[in-house]
Amino acid sequence: MKSIKVGLLGLGTVGTGVVRIVEGHQEDLQRKVGCPIEIEQILVKDKRKQRSIPLPTAKLTEDPADIIDNPDIDIVIEVMGGIAQAKELMLQAIARGKHVVTANKDLMAQHGAEILAQAAEKQCDVLYEASVAGGIPILRTLVNGFSSDRITKIMGIVNGTTNYILSKMSQEGASYEEVLREAQQLGYAEADPTSDVEGMDAAYKMAILGTLGFHTHVAMEDVSVKGISQVSKEDILYGQRLGYEIKLLGIAERKNDAISLSVQPTMVKQTHPLASVNGVFNAVYVYGEAVGETMFYGPGAGEMPTATSVVSDLVAIARNIMLGVSGKTSLAPYNEKKLMSDEQVVSKNFLLLHVADRAGVLSQITQVFAKHDVSLESVLQQPNEHNPLAEIIIITHDASRAGMNRVLAELEQLDVVQLIKSVYRVEG
Amino acid sequence: MKSIKVGLLGLGTVGTGVVRIVEGHQEDLQRKVGCPIEIEQILVKDKRKQRSIPLPTAKLTEDPADIIDNPDIDIVIEVMGGIAQAKELMLQAIARGKHVVTANKDLMAQHGAEILAQAAEKQCDVLYEASVAGGIPILRTLVNGFSSDRITKIMGIVNGTTNYILSKMSQEGASYEEVLREAQQLGYAEADPTSDVEGMDAAYKMAILGTLGFHTHVAMEDVSVKGISQVSKEDILYGQRLGYEIKLLGIAERKNDAISLSVQPTMVKQTHPLASVNGVFNAVYVYGEAVGETMFYGPGAGEMPTATSVVSDLVAIARNIMLGVSGKTSLAPYNEKKLMSDEQVVSKNFLLLHVADRAGVLSQITQVFAKHDVSLESVLQQPNEHNPLAEIIIITHDASRAGMNRVLAELEQLDVVQLIKSVYRVEG
Repeated sequence: MKSIKVGLLGLGTVGTGVVRIVEGHQEDLQRKVGCPIEIEQILVKDKRKQRSIPLPTAKLTEDPADIIDNPDIDIVIEVMGGIAQAKELMLQAIARGKHVVTANKDLMAQHGAEILAQAAEKQCDVLYEASVAGGIPILRTLVNGFSSDRITKIMGIVNGTTNYILSKMSQEGASYEEVLREAQQLGYAEADPTSDVEGMDAAYKMAILGTLGFHTHVAMEDVSVKGISQVSKEDILYGQRLGYEIKLLGIAERKNDAISLSVQPTMVKQTHPLASVNGVFNAVYVYGEAVGETMFYGPGAGEMPTATSVVSDLVAIARNIMLGVSGKTSLAPYNEKKLMSDEQVVSKNFLLLHVADRAGVLSQITQVFAKHDVSLESVLQQPNEHNPLAEIIIITHDASRAGMNRVLAELEQLDVVQLIKSVYRVEG
Repeated sequence: MKSIKVGLLGLGTVGTGVVRIVEGHQEDLQRKVGCPIEIEQILVKDKRKQRSIPLPTAKLTEDPADIIDNPDIDIVIEVMGGIAQAKELMLQAIARGKHVVTANKDLMAQHGAEILAQAAEKQCDVLYEASVAGGIPILRTLVNGFSSDRITKIMGIVNGTTNYILSKMSQEGASYEEVLREAQQLGYAEADPTSDVEGMDAAYKMAILGTLGFHTHVAMEDVSVKGISQVSKEDILYGQRLGYEIKLLGIAERKNDAISLSVQPTMVKQTHPLASVNGVFNAVYVYGEAVGETMFYGPGAGEMPTATSVVSDLVAIARNIMLGVSGKTSLAPYNEKKLMSDEQVVSKNFLLLHVADRAGVLSQITQVFAKHDVSLESVLQQPNEHNPLAEIIIITHDASRAGMNRVLAELEQLDVVQLIKSVYRVEG
C-alpha cells in the first residue's frame, strides 16, 4: 500500500501539534485519506535539543535539502515562520512538484499570489487554513461552504492578543498599559507586541480573507490599519454606557464591484454576535447576499487548534493525490481589483470631544456635521469630572469616510473644541 | 463547451431560492465550476400556478419522468419534501447515474444509509448540507474542516421555531402557549407544530450530525427526545436567576468509542456562546479533542439561506463531475456503533421541587442525593408565593443519567416532596 510522506519544516509549537495529531489520529486519517500518512523528515535548528514528544533522531535534520530534495516526500508542511527562508523553501519544494501546507499568514498575505501562481504552474496544491483564525476552518468555509453566494462583508476578530487586552480592559476597567503588561507575563502578548497591537497581524489575515471572499487579489497596502494602543479606559466606559463594546475588527466590504479593507478598533453593538467574543478567542462574521448573517467562532491560536487546521489541509491535499486531482481544485482570484474611494466607504461613527462648557457650543458643533451632510443618531453632553471642559459624545448615522474627514478637519478649527479625544467606526 | 444540467424536484420556497441563485450568480458559478450550470426541468404540482419568478413554461413539468428519465440531466435537486415519493425519485435518479442534492432532513435521517449506499454503488454523489441548520455550512465543516480531529461533542440549536419560542419566553416572561400562538400567526411555527416543539425535527438533524461527526451510523431510535411544551415561565425565571438560559439543545457526545444522542430543553450557562443565540437563528457548537471549542452561527431556515446550502452542494458535485471524481469523495461511516448506557451519560442537572415547608425537609432531600452519590453544586430554598409549600432548586455536579433516575424515583416516594416540577440537563 502506498503511503503519503510528509516533510515538516519547523518543530516549534505548531509543528509539535502536527506530529501529535498525525500520530495520535493515524487510524482515522488513514480511513479518510485511503492510505497511511507518515512524517518522514523534520527540519529543526538543533537536533540535540530536548523535545516534548519522543521522535527517532533519524527523522530530524538540520539541512532543508533533506526534505526539499527528498523525492519520497509528497507534501511539505511549513511551520517555521518568518518570511525569506520560508518563502525560498516553499518555492523550491513546489519547483520539485511537492505540495505545501503553511500556517504562515505574513508570507501568504505578502507573497501568496506569487506562491500560488507557481503552484498552479506545477500543478501543486498549496493550502493555508491555519494562517487565519487558528482552529476555525474559515478559509474553506469561504471557498466551499459559500461557493454559491456573493459575500459582501467579512468582519473578523482575528487577533487573540488584542482581543484579550480589550476584553480585560472592558471587564476590569483597567488601562491598556496595565493589561498589556499582564498579557506579556501570561505569554498572550509578545515582548515586542507591535505587530499585534498595531493591527498588522490582523491586516495580514484580512488580506487573505478578502482575497478568498471577494475573488480578487488584495495586497497589504490595500488594507488601512489602526491599532489599539490609543484605546482608553474612558472610551470603553462611554461605549458601554451607550451599548457598545470596543473590538479590534478587521472589516472587508464589497459594494457593487468595489472593495474596501480596514483594521481598526470599532464600537460593536452589544447585541451583535461579535460583541460577546472575549479573551483569546477569534470569530469571523460573514455576510452573504443570499445567506445573510453567519458567524464562525473558535480558538485563534495555540498548539493543537492551529495544528488541527494544518492537518485538515494535509488530509485535503492527500485526498487530492489519491484522486489524481492535485493542483486542479484551487481557484485563482478572477475579479479585477477596484478599491472604494473614501466617498464610498460608509459607516456610523462614534466621537468623543472635549469642548468648552458654555452656551452655544453644541449648536456650533452640530452645524459642522450638518454642513457636511452627516446626520446624527445620538448626542450626549456631560460635564467632565476632571476639568472645566464638557464632554460631548456623538454617534453619527451612516456617513462616508471622506465626509467624516471633512467634519473632523473643521471641528479641529473650532475654538470651542479643545480636543477630538477619540473617533471610532461603529458596527452592529 | 459542456454545461451541467440540473433537474429540480419542487418549486416551493427553497426551490424558488435555488432558481434565483443559479440565475443570479451564473457568472460566478461558471468560474467556480468551469462550465455553465443550467436548470433544465422543474417538477411542479401545477404548471399553470402563478410564480414569483419568471420561468419559461417549457421548463416546468408535472411528470417526474421528464427529469428522472432525461439523459441530459446530470444532477437532481430534491426540494419537494416528504418521505415516500422523494425517496423513490432519489433512488430512481441514482439508479440512472444522476447525482443528488437534497434539503430533506427527515428523509436523510431515516433513510440516509440506504440512499448513500446505493449512491456509492452507482458512483454518484449525494450531498445534503441544507438538511441541517439552513445556511450554516456545518456538514462540510465536520467532514472537511475537522477531518484531522476527533470530535467528542456536538451541541446544536438546530430548530428555529423552538428557539424563537424560548427566546421570546425568556425576553418577555411570556408563557409557552402565548408565544406559540404568536409564532403561528407570524409563520414561524406551523399550524401543527408537533414535530418542532416535541423535538423530532431537531432529532433528525442530530442523527445526521452524529453520523458525520462520529463516523458511525446513527439511527433515529438512538436519539432520546424531549420537547419544549412543558417548559414554564417559572423554569425560565429561576434559570435566569441562577445564570442560565433554557435552550432546546441537541447533544451528541462521544466518550472512548461509545456515543449518546439526545434532544431536550437544557439550562445553558449565560456565558456559554450558545446562550446568546436568539430568535430563529441556529448555532452548532463543536468540541474537538485537538481544536477545542468552536461554534458556527447563522440562519437556520428561509428561502435564500437554505438555497445557498443547496447550491453550494450543487457546485461541489459539478466540480467533481468536471474533475472526474464523482462518487469518490464521500466517506461511509466506518465506526461500529456503541451506545452509552445510562450509567455512562453524565451531566449536571437542574431540579425544581415543591416541598413541604417544615424543618428537616432539606436534610431528607439532600440525603437522597448523597445516597446515590450525586453531589450538589448549589441549593436554593425559598417560600412559594402561591401556596404553603416551599420551592427548592438544586443544581447537581456531574451525575450519570442512571444515578439521576434513581434519585428521582426515590424523591417521588418522599412524603415531603409534593411535586418534582422540572428536571433539566445543565450545560456550559
